[in-house]
Amino acid sequence: MSGLQLYNTYTRQTEAFRPIHDNIVGLYICGPTVYGPPHLGHVRGPVVFDVLRRYLEFQGFKVRHVRNITDVGHLVGDGDEGEDKLSKQARLEQLEPMEIAQTYTVAYNEMSRRMNVLPPNIEPRASGHIIEQIEMIEAIVNAGLAYKANGSVYFDVLAYAKSHDYGKLSGRILDDLIAGAGNEARELEGQDEKRNPNDFALWKKAAPEHIMQWSSPWGKGYPGWHIECSAMSRKYLGDVFDIHGGGMDLLFPHHESEIAQSTACTGHNPARFWVHHNMITINGQKMAKSLNNGIQVEELFSGNHALLEQAYSPMTLRFFILQAHYRGTLDFSNEALQAAEKGLQRLWNAAETAKKLPVSENSEYNITDIHEACLKSMNDDLNTPQVIAQLFEAARVSNSAADGKIKLDQVNIHALNELFDTWMVSILGIQPEKEGNDSALDGVMQMLLQMRAQAKADKNYALSDEIRNKLTALGFVIKDGKEGSSWSI
Amino acid sequence: MSGLQLYNTYTRQTEAFRPIHDNIVGLYICGPTVYGPPHLGHVRGPVVFDVLRRYLEFQGFKVRHVRNITDVGHLVGDGDEGEDKLSKQARLEQLEPMEIAQTYTVAYNEMSRRMNVLPPNIEPRASGHIIEQIEMIEAIVNAGLAYKANGSVYFDVLAYAKSHDYGKLSGRILDDLIAGAGNEARELEGQDEKRNPNDFALWKKAAPEHIMQWSSPWGKGYPGWHIECSAMSRKYLGDVFDIHGGGMDLLFPHHESEIAQSTACTGHNPARFWVHHNMITINGQKMAKSLNNGIQVEELFSGNHALLEQAYSPMTLRFFILQAHYRGTLDFSNEALQAAEKGLQRLWNAAETAKKLPVSENSEYNITDIHEACLKSMNDDLNTPQVIAQLFEAARVSNSAADGKIKLDQVNIHALNELFDTWMVSILGIQPEKEGNDSALDGVMQMLLQMRAQAKADKNYALSDEIRNKLTALGFVIKDGKEGSSWSI
Repeated sequence: MSGLQLYNTYTRQTEAFRPIHDNIVGLYICGPTVYGPPHLGHVRGPVVFDVLRRYLEFQGFKVRHVRNITDVGHLVGDGDEGEDKLSKQARLEQLEPMEIAQTYTVAYNEMSRRMNVLPPNIEPRASGHIIEQIEMIEAIVNAGLAYKANGSVYFDVLAYAKSHDYGKLSGRILDDLIAGAGNEARELEGQDEKRNPNDFALWKKAAPEHIMQWSSPWGKGYPGWHIECSAMSRKYLGDVFDIHGGGMDLLFPHHESEIAQSTACTGHNPARFWVHHNMITINGQKMAKSLNNGIQVEELFSGNHALLEQAYSPMTLRFFILQAHYRGTLDFSNEALQAAEKGLQRLWNAAETAKKLPVSENSEYNITDIHEACLKSMNDDLNTPQVIAQLFEAARVSNSAADGKIKLDQVNIHALNELFDTWMVSILGIQPEKEGNDSALDGVMQMLLQMRAQAKADKNYALSDEIRNKLTALGFVIKDGKEGSSWSI
Repeated sequence: MSGLQLYNTYTRQTEAFRPIHDNIVGLYICGPTVYGPPHLGHVRGPVVFDVLRRYLEFQGFKVRHVRNITDVGHLVGDGDEGEDKLSKQARLEQLEPMEIAQTYTVAYNEMSRRMNVLPPNIEPRASGHIIEQIEMIEAIVNAGLAYKANGSVYFDVLAYAKSHDYGKLSGRILDDLIAGAGNEARELEGQDEKRNPNDFALWKKAAPEHIMQWSSPWGKGYPGWHIECSAMSRKYLGDVFDIHGGGMDLLFPHHESEIAQSTACTGHNPARFWVHHNMITINGQKMAKSLNNGIQVEELFSGNHALLEQAYSPMTLRFFILQAHYRGTLDFSNEALQAAEKGLQRLWNAAETAKKLPVSENSEYNITDIHEACLKSMNDDLNTPQVIAQLFEAARVSNSAADGKIKLDQVNIHALNELFDTWMVSILGIQPEKEGNDSALDGVMQMLLQMRAQAKADKNYALSDEIRNKLTALGFVIKDGKEGSSWSI
């Protein structure tokens, strides 16, 4: 019993999370289609589900986290028409599609590494699981819920809907879909092969010049977009697993199709919990090519974009994301990012302060209360903004204790330090950004602060002021306290 | 025409390198079997072939560098018997084999990243190319050079050897192999299915409990180890490509089998050049479990191993590897690594010195001579030790010019700086190790050096000495010169 209450998109209810197997949680997250550099639309999912995973692991579960790489089959427009995104980009860059996939897989993983997102336990590629997809399609055909047409295979939505609740996850009503799809049916290529415009491709016949194609019982072709996740989640997590996650934009058609495919094949909705994070906006608007507000993650980290007033670090970005609840929208703006940067710095400073607090005989604050409040917030459908609010309360206590306004005993000082370690670092996954020449820098700074203290003691104020002024000019913040001086950048 | 002369293991000759296609080089390197953390046996190949790739790119070629991930089919003992390495490790760690593969793929790529090895353009996984392997096996069966036995498929070495030179790459003589293999034939499982003990598996029947298995024309099973590289190199580089590389330990049976498979299938030796790097030793001995001298790369980077006197950085390791010619053995010892560390530091210091040399009217040294000598060395079968010797000559010139012993004009100072950039950084791939708080540290250090200079000018030697002594105690090296002082760690 974990105490975790999680909102299940499928049931539209917040439910108590209990894993299928005692101690193991199967977690499948839809990963990126690797045909371009990671942009702000890519950052939220990895961070949100990383925190879910970290929290489950904190609770003692072993998590098998599977996140796929879509390197084939994802067509432009998310329907069954148009070019494969990978092939199209490959043609533009005049490269083998797998070079595109490799380049942007590396870029995506590098982004994840910098944002301290734990690598998934298994990272399957769609192109590496063609056999598994073919076998699943065969099973759906044998169940009478898919049909062949001209070398392609389509899922028969109407046949499926006769005995299943098609549209339950996404809240779509089939009759509305049919009415809406009528007009485009004749205009789009491949639609004439379908019995119904809402049918979706499981396997697409490839033209001879198509680069990515494989042999199948239906001739040379490539898999549809949706079947990859059904085949790969099943292979590595079983017919039914605990949690399937993704962005809300994947609700329809992707996740709705996954449920239909798995149900047709195994008789089961593959996931107990369907968990969706909301989308991002930029200055209140959707990110879109036409609005010219598409910001790549690298641009955010370097500050190199017309909409950005400065660079924002990976940890600022991570903290910013977690300051919003995952089911609410997240709006990027310079003001909001700068506020996150400041807030995070305040937390780090307080965490540093907590390391050298004066010890009192007794305690005027019970730090366990904050820990309990954090647990309660996380159990409340991963309410990370509330957890962060609790961390700011801990920062207030830390600073007040340093100023002598609150007394803390040894036990509570220890608990305060542990609180930052557990919740900031382990569960929220916020790590100090400093790397590399850290210890050398700290060594020199300690030396300078000692020189300054000595100069003060010697009443050599010219020297002590000179050191302080020069350091300030270099961007250092020097903080004098009872226990000596400390520095930060 | 590149000027590059490369030793071809297949012909036992150093040959002029000319790519098959005008401007593109296809390069296939056998990558890791990902069933354990990277150790010193893993470091040489990535660095050697990274430098080959960088040099080809420096010469203006576009390189398509393919390096595979072996995540299935590599059996313990490299023969056709015993357990799959991945499955065995998975059983030991009680994980799905793909979790093992993912963990150690991430570890291998993290090692490569830290050693500044460029990621391959395509990184195909064996398990992701089962269809391609099956199709190649079918072609070999159809050519009459493989036979089915009890759900497995074996390559028929004797039939192949009738019309092909089996053993040419590795220098093995088939009659000797037959004589040597006779005794073990009856003892090893699966050998009784073979017509000849030297036949090797293309496809192995899987027992029902075997975790990694796929459907095939011969029933459920998994591919043999050798066929993966034939199938993946062919898919991404074509029937015949420019360079196939690997360690000398792969000559037989792996690469010999690759040649036989590809020839049986396409009629061609798949690679124009077969390039092999020699092996490593540790204190003069082979790395072996029984000798307890297996050092993981992480242990080298942290210094955390009984045989290590200190930690060695990724760049020290890279430099150390390149100080030996790739076809000679490379012996790891503390003395040799420490010498490499010192030598590399000397080069960096000289490269820093070169940035602020006094400009003379005319030049007593022609830096182009060093550049030409570097080119000549690299063209001589990638003679990186000679290139490094030239860089030490450049360091001597830089230091002499700083001391006023050699005059350099603007053009040659520029060329000297470019030389370090081109050869150290771009081609040998040695990058500065400093990261992170670099600029802050440099700011503070410049401030301290100025304070010290001012103290000296004020004849306040107590202060100037205090600064110097404290910095020395912190591990900094302060170098005073005509143009002011500089620092290093």
